[in-house]
Amino acid sequence: MAAALMLRVSVRLQFRQRRVFADSVAMVSSRGMASKTSVGFIGLGNMGTPMAKNLIKHGYPVITYDVFPEACKEIQEMGSQVTDSPADVAERADRIITMLPSNPNVIEVYTGNNGILKKVKKGSLLIDSSTIDPAVSKDLAKEAEKMGAVFMDAPVSGGVGAARAGNLTFMVGGVEQEFDAAKELLTCMGSNVVYCGEVGTGQAAKICNNMLLAVSMIGTAETMNLGIRLGLDPKLLAKILNMSSGRCWSSDTYNPVPGVMEGVPSANSYQGGFGTTLMAKDLGLAQISATNTKTPIPLGSLAHQVYRIMCAKGYALKDFSSVFQFLREEENL
Amino acid sequence: MAAALMLRVSVRLQFRQRRVFADSVAMVSSRGMASKTSVGFIGLGNMGTPMAKNLIKHGYPVITYDVFPEACKEIQEMGSQVTDSPADVAERADRIITMLPSNPNVIEVYTGNNGILKKVKKGSLLIDSSTIDPAVSKDLAKEAEKMGAVFMDAPVSGGVGAARAGNLTFMVGGVEQEFDAAKELLTCMGSNVVYCGEVGTGQAAKICNNMLLAVSMIGTAETMNLGIRLGLDPKLLAKILNMSSGRCWSSDTYNPVPGVMEGVPSANSYQGGFGTTLMAKDLGLAQISATNTKTPIPLGSLAHQVYRIMCAKGYALKDFSSVFQFLREEENL
Amino acid sequence: MAAALMLRVSVRLQFRQRRVFADSVAMVSSRGMASKTSVGFIGLGNMGTPMAKNLIKHGYPVITYDVFPEACKEIQEMGSQVTDSPADVAERADRIITMLPSNPNVIEVYTGNNGILKKVKKGSLLIDSSTIDPAVSKDLAKEAEKMGAVFMDAPVSGGVGAARAGNLTFMVGGVEQEFDAAKELLTCMGSNVVYCGEVGTGQAAKICNNMLLAVSMIGTAETMNLGIRLGLDPKLLAKILNMSSGRCWSSDTYNPVPGVMEGVPSANSYQGGFGTTLMAKDLGLAQISATNTKTPIPLGSLAHQVYRIMCAKGYALKDFSSVFQFLREEENL
Amino acid sequence: MAAALMLRVSVRLQFRQRRVFADSVAMVSSRGMASKTSVGFIGLGNMGTPMAKNLIKHGYPVITYDVFPEACKEIQEMGSQVTDSPADVAERADRIITMLPSNPNVIEVYTGNNGILKKVKKGSLLIDSSTIDPAVSKDLAKEAEKMGAVFMDAPVSGGVGAARAGNLTFMVGGVEQEFDAAKELLTCMGSNVVYCGEVGTGQAAKICNNMLLAVSMIGTAETMNLGIRLGLDPKLLAKILNMSSGRCWSSDTYNPVPGVMEGVPSANSYQGGFGTTLMAKDLGLAQISATNTKTPIPLGSLAHQVYRIMCAKGYALKDFSSVFQFLREEENL
Repeated sequence: MAAALMLRVSVRLQFRQRRVFADSVAMVSSRGMASKTSVGFIGLGNMGTPMAKNLIKHGYPVITYDVFPEACKEIQEMGSQVTDSPADVAERADRIITMLPSNPNVIEVYTGNNGILKKVKKGSLLIDSSTIDPAVSKDLAKEAEKMGAVFMDAPVSGGVGAARAGNLTFMVGGVEQEFDAAKELLTCMGSNVVYCGEVGTGQAAKICNNMLLAVSMIGTAETMNLGIRLGLDPKLLAKILNMSSGRCWSSDTYNPVPGVMEGVPSANSYQGGFGTTLMAKDLGLAQISATNTKTPIPLGSLAHQVYRIMCAKGYALKDFSSVFQFLREEENL
Repeated sequence: MAAALMLRVSVRLQFRQRRVFADSVAMVSSRGMASKTSVGFIGLGNMGTPMAKNLIKHGYPVITYDVFPEACKEIQEMGSQVTDSPADVAERADRIITMLPSNPNVIEVYTGNNGILKKVKKGSLLIDSSTIDPAVSKDLAKEAEKMGAVFMDAPVSGGVGAARAGNLTFMVGGVEQEFDAAKELLTCMGSNVVYCGEVGTGQAAKICNNMLLAVSMIGTAETMNLGIRLGLDPKLLAKILNMSSGRCWSSDTYNPVPGVMEGVPSANSYQGGFGTTLMAKDLGLAQISATNTKTPIPLGSLAHQVYRIMCAKGYALKDFSSVFQFLREEENL
Repeated sequence: MAAALMLRVSVRLQFRQRRVFADSVAMVSSRGMASKTSVGFIGLGNMGTPMAKNLIKHGYPVITYDVFPEACKEIQEMGSQVTDSPADVAERADRIITMLPSNPNVIEVYTGNNGILKKVKKGSLLIDSSTIDPAVSKDLAKEAEKMGAVFMDAPVSGGVGAARAGNLTFMVGGVEQEFDAAKELLTCMGSNVVYCGEVGTGQAAKICNNMLLAVSMIGTAETMNLGIRLGLDPKLLAKILNMSSGRCWSSDTYNPVPGVMEGVPSANSYQGGFGTTLMAKDLGLAQISATNTKTPIPLGSLAHQVYRIMCAKGYALKDFSSVFQFLREEENL
Repeated sequence: MAAALMLRVSVRLQFRQRRVFADSVAMVSSRGMASKTSVGFIGLGNMGTPMAKNLIKHGYPVITYDVFPEACKEIQEMGSQVTDSPADVAERADRIITMLPSNPNVIEVYTGNNGILKKVKKGSLLIDSSTIDPAVSKDLAKEAEKMGAVFMDAPVSGGVGAARAGNLTFMVGGVEQEFDAAKELLTCMGSNVVYCGEVGTGQAAKICNNMLLAVSMIGTAETMNLGIRLGLDPKLLAKILNMSSGRCWSSDTYNPVPGVMEGVPSANSYQGGFGTTLMAKDLGLAQISATNTKTPIPLGSLAHQVYRIMCAKGYALKDFSSVFQFLREEENL
């Protein structure tokens, strides 16, 4: 919110900027044909590291930065050049990918004292794959535009496994004529790159999917629990739901009840998978987006609260399908 | 609840009864092989009438009763014999199907002064296709057992169209060795007959499916509405959800947003389909079952409240996917 | 529901009954002037025992029954006559008070094989102080009416302490001309006897109060927790709320935050007070009443679910204000 | 969020600033004894205008600004000096009060190109009476500190009437030694000035109170509606609740049921009072604060959604107690 306003204020009527930007678009577009020049990558966590590795495997020299230098070791050993700040990365690469935990980190990496935007080259392509508030993505795009650069949001679905295997899904928002240039890089890390519309819509698409996922997962857990209490066999109930109108991804692909399916977190004490704390974070983004757009989301909002309570009660690190366990009568009672 | 207790009290240690019942089971089983004898049908509403017609088409003489005599006309003209009470039907047929609006009607038809159980023959097979509280189904099964008869619950999914076409889905609960005998009749009216377990589990399966359906429908409506507010194209958003973990029947088969799919109620001003008032009724049954079994259903319960409010605000007769319209900003504001 | 129907069916057009009832009303009314004759008391639990003692202290001979004979010992030593069944009590007393855990117990005590109604005298006054579904109270009143007896519902507010001190509050529903006769007995056990209207309204009043209590208690716990997280001192926040529009009994008389008030369960590890499991039971009654009357109760319904989850997570026996503890971040995380 | 980060980054280790600030504190404190010097007032809406008038009545020369010049007319006629920007006000007054609609307006007025902080004098006292996100208040306090000025948040409770009568309640957050200086001005406009703690806690206190108010109002509306459906007289039910544990401000002072109380919006077609749209705004702030502090607020969150839906369904301008009307069966159904 706060940044939004400041940026809006300062972005008005920048005719010169716009001309420069027009040029930069040309530059960027032409760049598509260029040989493989360096790509910047900022944020080398569990997701960022395997993503950067896949870029290297595809022949891209990678210039990196992470607030924790040791995080860069693995990549450095693969020949990647490590710098001292996001600004340094921006000096040496005109295509940069960022993969960071949340709003404040992204804002600092782009707009901080040593941020990308302090030294970004005109015509640079900046792709943020973090999952953040779409309003922040829009603000950063305006800031980048002022520098003659292009900012796109491209959050991912799929976890660490998909990051390693290079089959993430990217949901991309930004200027359409830049999509091909972004896709060229993203296809090195993902099998599925979807253009969603103007900047921020990549975030919107991800937030929307995860909100519906959370609602249907909790609904599935409640339904399976109720059915069991009413005397139904869990496998039979799952089968009935999956051939009926109750069918959803949470019931037919990721069933939360132990013993119903194999190879899912519920078959492995809810280890691995997508952590409750991460789901709570995405639902928080949905909540904030809904509040800012005055959109009623009664069930999405309650799903947020359920996952928030679970985080407070010791389920933070379990897969989000552990809501089935949370709703069950405790054995020792 | 109330009946449950009374029945439980009076059903204790009825050794003679049980022997009689053992005999009756044999009788019933043997009956499977019998030529097409009369079948009783009670409750000739929008669903019951086409169901009874399909029995006649399959060569079964049908003996009918409805609290509104005129409701029997259509069937009478097809040669069906109309009686004056459920008891009369029970005198003339040892296989009876009931299709009634709700708990009290079912209780009266079976246990009332002129109810089926007043004159039911030993070994009769009583199939209730109404959607009611599973606890009531269990009570009635105990009452029937005392008379040496067998009661099964077999609620349907699919609407009037499916009833006419004879491709309803039946979810059947009751003594397993009776299932074949029930299936023989139900297959005349439905394409899919699923055995769910002991008596009451047919109701449980239907209630569970519809609860998850309601939760995912409201979740889909909220998600589509939020996405639209955040700048996403509804068709594109639906496409993204349907290839991701947000996928559910409500998003990929019955999308609530006008313009996204054809041939669904949202494409026809939410006319036809499954009425909000019927969904509210089924959620009420889920709510009562959850309360009686002390099962937490936070989202199912909120879904019930949302549909209850919609009924109070003029959506009672619209398809339940009209929740999308309910959550939207009113145009004239 | 179930009983309701059966009773309704069988109660129709009983002219003789009604005449008898008219007589009985006269009898009952006259009885008000009589000397202290025996009073029956069924259900000698934590609440019933001190209530019965207070009747004895006021000079009423008490005739008792409890399904657990040992429960009667204490009262027996005070000279109370112990019987073998509710029916026996009904044979020996024409004024009976019942204090039982829930619907099924009440139904059995009144309508079971050895129930009160099997041997109730014409003109008897039957007062049920249990907290149950108002629909069941209405059914039992109809059954009693058929026997020429009068049934009133008179649930209490106030716990074991108030029962001992004889200052319970009774909320009474039933025929108005019987209220004085009921009040004569209830004032021995309570300081506050309120006439609420026709039979069932006593239960309705209690259920309504406890639903609003649950909603405002959870709301208070959420609010205090949020304020603390935002840097407010709990005592100061409570003071501000209590002089503002957020004021409620849960904030100014029974604050759920340890350290804010003395002499409340939150000051004593949430021991004593009104157990979460009892609140969940009353909310279940509110839920069922709302479902049966098609009344939307979004927050009351969610409050029910919150307390239901707490029961499943180990809070069943703690005071219901422990919802503050339930919502807090666990210390060991 | 966004601004928070930027400010945090730039505020680090400003030793000189801190010394200057120390001086300024002395200046400010001494100022308390000074004769009545000019006070700046920015934001002359329905609330701001009567507030500024009360300052003038107490002998303070007032220097004003509003984005809509015509808004200043009334005050100008009372001799107030009107300026062209917040910065101009800051040049001419070292005590400034701001009363603005929401976050973005406040941010622009303080940090915009012509904002207060562009020309604020060292030692100035800046009091924001708008209701906004406490996180934004904290950010602005840091920005002000950098300029050697002091920022306090002092949101009000009480509507236009209280603003005119000069008996608003102010909840004040900020440096404690500044409280007396702030109180000197605020007591001209309010009868009740409460110190809540560090900057942001004034907002926190208001948000918390209004969240609990919303929860108990909806709870009261649900409870009254359910009681009426169960046969209770509304006035009697209100009386019972108000002498029991369900008692709250919404039941005993502002009852939402027409006919129960006089002189409240429910007695006047829900006109006047506190608009649903304003309550929805405050609940949005509570929601965002809870999300940012990871605090679970299940009922507060659902209350937000209920008011959000009401805004979408035509209740935006009615008093927030109209939730009773929203939950009722529509007459014309």
